[in-house]
Amino acid sequence: MEQLTFSKLELNKPFYLGDIILSEQEIMDYAQAFDPLEFHTNKEAAAKSHFKGLVASGSHVFTLIHRTKWIPVFGKTVLAGLEVNNWKFLKPIYPNQKITSTVTITAIKPNTEKHYATVTWFYELKNEQQELLQVLEMIVLHKQ
Amino acid sequence: MEQLTFSKLELNKPFYLGDIILSEQEIMDYAQAFDPLEFHTNKEAAAKSHFKGLVASGSHVFTLIHRTKWIPVFGKTVLAGLEVNNWKFLKPIYPNQKITSTVTITAIKPNTEKHYATVTWFYELKNEQQELLQVLEMIVLHKQ
Repeated sequence: MEQLTFSKLELNKPFYLGDIILSEQEIMDYAQAFDPLEFHTNKEAAAKSHFKGLVASGSHVFTLIHRTKWIPVFGKTVLAGLEVNNWKFLKPIYPNQKITSTVTITAIKPNTEKHYATVTWFYELKNEQQELLQVLEMIVLHKQ
Repeated sequence: MEQLTFSKLELNKPFYLGDIILSEQEIMDYAQAFDPLEFHTNKEAAAKSHFKGLVASGSHVFTLIHRTKWIPVFGKTVLAGLEVNNWKFLKPIYPNQKITSTVTITAIKPNTEKHYATVTWFYELKNEQQELLQVLEMIVLHKQ
């Protein structure tokens, strides 16, 4: 995958990261490891819950997109993660649902003397109906 | 572990969740799966980085504490996660460092008619010198 730096992106213009689909098994395996609540790990219990079926752990889909879509493209210049803000779980994420992800740079604070910049990345995850499933703001220190 | 509900805790009073220590191998394994940046996955590269050694992925320590300390005590009444806010990576986390975690309920919005409540949980992770390493605010819908 081609490595890009934040300086290649236009401010406030969404960058398409790619699509992702979670299977039932992937949802249950991730939740067993990190978020073992019944409606993430047990199909029968989930069917009886207010979700009416298995749903992914809130952190699962973002974690996977960050790992497989963002880091391969933008990871090379990362100096440190600083903050995560306004991570909102707006709609439940069910298995076998196509999730589209974009990221937008909403702020850049350069420190030209020290050759780094503090970059705000705004993630949006949507379903095929273009409804927002999750949003998240991540503040990262990058090499200039 | 004894199950507690949020209503058993006093507002604004820290609840001790427990201590945790990450080994080098655990740091590298987690990062390989979820955050494969060199200073999390490669000891030699990390030693040459501005961290001067291997550091844990920002999400690693909180994810583990949430999984092993919070869910076994408070997981039973969770209806849904709603938001994560102000997750700040204040200091790097090195291997074999004792990390103490507390959680404090800072707000409860009950909906008595529907028998649920929106609860704000504020996590604080500290080192042995009582310095803050990370903070995080998690908003969760709980059964009453």
